[in-house]
Amino acid sequence: MYRNFKLVPNIIFGRGCFNQLGDILKPRRPASGSRMVFILDDVFKGRTLEGRLPMEKGDLLLHVNVDDEPKTKYIDQLVARIRAEDSRLPDGIIGLGGGSTMDIAKAVSLLLTNPGSAADYQGWDLIRIPAVYHVGVPTISGTGAEISRTTVLTGPEKKLGINSDFTLFDQVVLDPELLAGVPKNQWFYTGMDTYIHDVESLHGTYLNEFSRAYGEKSRDLCRQVFLDDIPDKDDKLMMASYFGGMSIAYSQVGACHALSYGLAFVLGTHHGIGCCITFNQLEDVYPEGVREFRKMMDKHGIELPSGLTADLDDKAMDTMITVSLGMAPLWENCFGKDWKEIMTRERARKLYQKI
Amino acid sequence: MYRNFKLVPNIIFGRGCFNQLGDILKPRRPASGSRMVFILDDVFKGRTLEGRLPMEKGDLLLHVNVDDEPKTKYIDQLVARIRAEDSRLPDGIIGLGGGSTMDIAKAVSLLLTNPGSAADYQGWDLIRIPAVYHVGVPTISGTGAEISRTTVLTGPEKKLGINSDFTLFDQVVLDPELLAGVPKNQWFYTGMDTYIHDVESLHGTYLNEFSRAYGEKSRDLCRQVFLDDIPDKDDKLMMASYFGGMSIAYSQVGACHALSYGLAFVLGTHHGIGCCITFNQLEDVYPEGVREFRKMMDKHGIELPSGLTADLDDKAMDTMITVSLGMAPLWENCFGKDWKEIMTRERARKLYQKI
Repeated sequence: MYRNFKLVPNIIFGRGCFNQLGDILKPRRPASGSRMVFILDDVFKGRTLEGRLPMEKGDLLLHVNVDDEPKTKYIDQLVARIRAEDSRLPDGIIGLGGGSTMDIAKAVSLLLTNPGSAADYQGWDLIRIPAVYHVGVPTISGTGAEISRTTVLTGPEKKLGINSDFTLFDQVVLDPELLAGVPKNQWFYTGMDTYIHDVESLHGTYLNEFSRAYGEKSRDLCRQVFLDDIPDKDDKLMMASYFGGMSIAYSQVGACHALSYGLAFVLGTHHGIGCCITFNQLEDVYPEGVREFRKMMDKHGIELPSGLTADLDDKAMDTMITVSLGMAPLWENCFGKDWKEIMTRERARKLYQKI
Repeated sequence: MYRNFKLVPNIIFGRGCFNQLGDILKPRRPASGSRMVFILDDVFKGRTLEGRLPMEKGDLLLHVNVDDEPKTKYIDQLVARIRAEDSRLPDGIIGLGGGSTMDIAKAVSLLLTNPGSAADYQGWDLIRIPAVYHVGVPTISGTGAEISRTTVLTGPEKKLGINSDFTLFDQVVLDPELLAGVPKNQWFYTGMDTYIHDVESLHGTYLNEFSRAYGEKSRDLCRQVFLDDIPDKDDKLMMASYFGGMSIAYSQVGACHALSYGLAFVLGTHHGIGCCITFNQLEDVYPEGVREFRKMMDKHGIELPSGLTADLDDKAMDTMITVSLGMAPLWENCFGKDWKEIMTRERARKLYQKI
């Protein structure tokens, strides 16, 4: 059985294409009384991008804070707030920011139509009702959130995505100009998320020629962006992120992502840097990938934090391991059906102790 | 202004995934009295594929002949026949075959809902009403018809596609097993269609990083398929065709396709071989591409026909040139705004005289 793979059905790409967002939304606005909700990373508060939003009378602008990665409770609060402002369903949700902000926009659009809490839907294909029309506008590239069928949330019990065909954006706006001004470390960590997607997908047991074609080209683009001195880096990184997302969408990530989930759940480590930290310890699993990753770190003078788990008590360490080993599809993709014999709790513990 | 690019929203890829077609169609069949129309290249008449169609009571199977490339009149006849069988609109159209058969399925699905003749819609964005749900199942790879927003038809006045967002398939089924048994020459000519898409897109003035990423990877896959000895050639060629289609969908083809249209209109030359014949004369325009193409021909012992235009009278030659130079966006992509000064009627005539 193969998955019938759903894609984001509308993509606009190009420098300055953000200026067309208003035109793109127009057919989604009923003749009178339309209401769009713009969800904007609060780092843009008062900055140029905020002033460029094609807002019309009745629209709502929500600034969201992503200092912490999105929690299910936060989604529930945002949904309640949108409902409190106006009981009518919005005509569209537009998420502008990085992976966390785009994930918030996806989750909000789902929870506006599906009853209950976001935590009820963490898992695979639990969503039953189509979401409100939703648009993703990345302002940093690498997570693949613009193209993925998940929105990764930290709930009371687990960090796990709402994986569903309804999660996918209806439209993405890929404007490389929006990447200007991303702080260097964040640019690197988030970009590495894509590079790691490629390595994990290409090394995985789930790989097919669909995922291989996307993964190889994404890795090639990452090499150009992070190892070579080329023009149009932002354009290429945006495409690398899109292709990396397409590669894993039809296969799966692997060991690094599984470990990073445990780290994030217990310590709140952000996804990009968390993946870099765990990937750096996986030379046994992804030897070539980790060597090339270190070259990229060298070239950009990146130093990873260390000693993260030094003060962790046994209970916290156990939770970290349990959350990570709970990501069965990721481990199976990495090591095959017998993954449990290969990635034992003890081996996971040793890996976590090194970081 | 950038184009907001619409994609085929559902793709299934994998060896044997054709077996899932019945499941894919199920949600499109209303509880009772559903009617799907299967449009099958008549080379499959009585062959295994025909027996594997997931047909149910009330479904219609239409064998289509593509010895000649599809004509607008043929589309009108097929639409009339579907209506004559049953006045209700079908619940879906499934096209199984090469580029011509898939184009027929697309055109039929459009003309079932849009009034008039297929010839009325040759051009750009003339379609106003969404098509009947339609599915593409390629059995030969290279045209990119599985992913394109056009259906190329020969009308009374021109060979020109019905270009529209509604033309796109709602679903494609990419099963590399279906490519087994394609005759070698046809395999080569149709595969070269993709290679030429890549060269024309990558060389074009419309190129952006979106089209570049797809075009480069498609070209890379073509090199593996046609120059290297690799396993999984059918899987890779299927991906090359898809990526090549994605590359031109956001940019445009060029000189070779423009010339091939004139050739097809006057002499009925099929698209794949027609592109090979014209491309072989375009060393001045695409030097590296043509050199590599000749290497591929050598490797597979392909010999192109020649002397095609030897007996052509002046009027026919003039028509050929007029049809070709009518493809303004293709020439502009190739040579830029001033293309008319570069590709004069005289130069086009000389190119045609050589083939």
